[in-house]
Amino acid sequence: MNSKIGSYEFVIDHAVCDLSGKAPLPHLFGLLLKSAGRHADERGFGFTNLSQQNKAWVLSRVGIYLNEYPSAEDKITIHTWVESVEWFISRRCFEFVDTDGKIMGIAQTIWAAIDLETRKPCNIDELGSSINDFLGADKSFAEKKMVKIGRVEEEPLFLHSLKYSDIDINGHFNSVRYVERILDVFDIEMFESLNVREFEITYMAEARPATKLSFHKKTLAEQHFALEIKDTANQSTICRASVLFQ
Amino acid sequence: MNSKIGSYEFVIDHAVCDLSGKAPLPHLFGLLLKSAGRHADERGFGFTNLSQQNKAWVLSRVGIYLNEYPSAEDKITIHTWVESVEWFISRRCFEFVDTDGKIMGIAQTIWAAIDLETRKPCNIDELGSSINDFLGADKSFAEKKMVKIGRVEEEPLFLHSLKYSDIDINGHFNSVRYVERILDVFDIEMFESLNVREFEITYMAEARPATKLSFHKKTLAEQHFALEIKDTANQSTICRASVLFQ
Repeated sequence: MNSKIGSYEFVIDHAVCDLSGKAPLPHLFGLLLKSAGRHADERGFGFTNLSQQNKAWVLSRVGIYLNEYPSAEDKITIHTWVESVEWFISRRCFEFVDTDGKIMGIAQTIWAAIDLETRKPCNIDELGSSINDFLGADKSFAEKKMVKIGRVEEEPLFLHSLKYSDIDINGHFNSVRYVERILDVFDIEMFESLNVREFEITYMAEARPATKLSFHKKTLAEQHFALEIKDTANQSTICRASVLFQ
Repeated sequence: MNSKIGSYEFVIDHAVCDLSGKAPLPHLFGLLLKSAGRHADERGFGFTNLSQQNKAWVLSRVGIYLNEYPSAEDKITIHTWVESVEWFISRRCFEFVDTDGKIMGIAQTIWAAIDLETRKPCNIDELGSSINDFLGADKSFAEKKMVKIGRVEEEPLFLHSLKYSDIDINGHFNSVRYVERILDVFDIEMFESLNVREFEITYMAEARPATKLSFHKKTLAEQHFALEIKDTANQSTICRASVLFQ
């Protein structure tokens, strides 16, 4: 095993599965973040290390591409590695693998390291972290180019005031909850016959407990949608996402 | 270790913590259900065993009483055992214990075994399961009497149509999501200075994707509330809960 790659095993708990008996995408996204956190912590460039410098990793973009979803009680392994570091930006990749070694899906995430005082991004090379020692994992990755998601100008579907369960340990809208709230825009019936094949999200601004959000949806093609969450106070964009069902 | 008692260790993930840096009650409730499931499965009377007879455990009541909440990265152990079996009803108890062996809180759950065809409860003694072999755990439990929660006749606070993320593998409102949705009734500010000290819920009827719910709240005393979720179609009760903050 190449130590540049971290491999983490999970069992899909019966209690987290959706009405189709599969692990929902937000749950798999949570496991992916857990794997990323463990991989970085074990190698000395995780949240703990950065927080000693009053810095933190901030998630900027995520793309998840799944051919298959694991079912209740299935074991899956998530492989993760740092694909590149460029100035302010680190790109981390993932594979979801079943017990036969078959790749069920892939994912990519874009992270920035920010200074917690100024909230500005830092040059990752100047962090003095060990991240560069773990570049160059010998791993072929069927790269998916993340496309810029355009503005969604449609009228709001509904407004949402952030609730207790939406807020994370930093007092911001929890990254996994964004994904739940976005999928909850769609009728439950869609999830009976279709799966989310591709999900991309770009986090553009922080939402805090007092932020009142509006949700907007545009149909790009059959079963392919763009979504935008805006801050109702000034119409600025909180995040944009695209969802492809198949 | 008494094999009548199951002990399960969990680490509180940074990513699940709330704005106070602690594990939220719904997350601990999920761990409690996970422990219950493992305990029963390992001893031959879990969901898998019952499903072979086309039967299932149904959660009827829950009481969770917490003096302290674990923080991010804390390790906790959940001890669980079957306290009693009476005809249609099984009572299961829990302790939340920190790494020093201090009891942070306790919980109790009431389960019925139902026939999945008739949806009627079954006499647990006639299940032919091994559950009775595991009664009589030598465990003192500071029993909390669960009080019947009265009707909440107040006007609805809001209506809620069930969403994709609300629905479990059986096509019903997920038991943990009930608790999240109930806590989300309260202002986020309450959770900055107070903790949920006691939470009790009685599940009274199943809610399915098409069910439209109304949420009702009554103040019982300072920082003590009764809540009721009703089916807007016929005003019947889906569940009642009581929440004590301190």
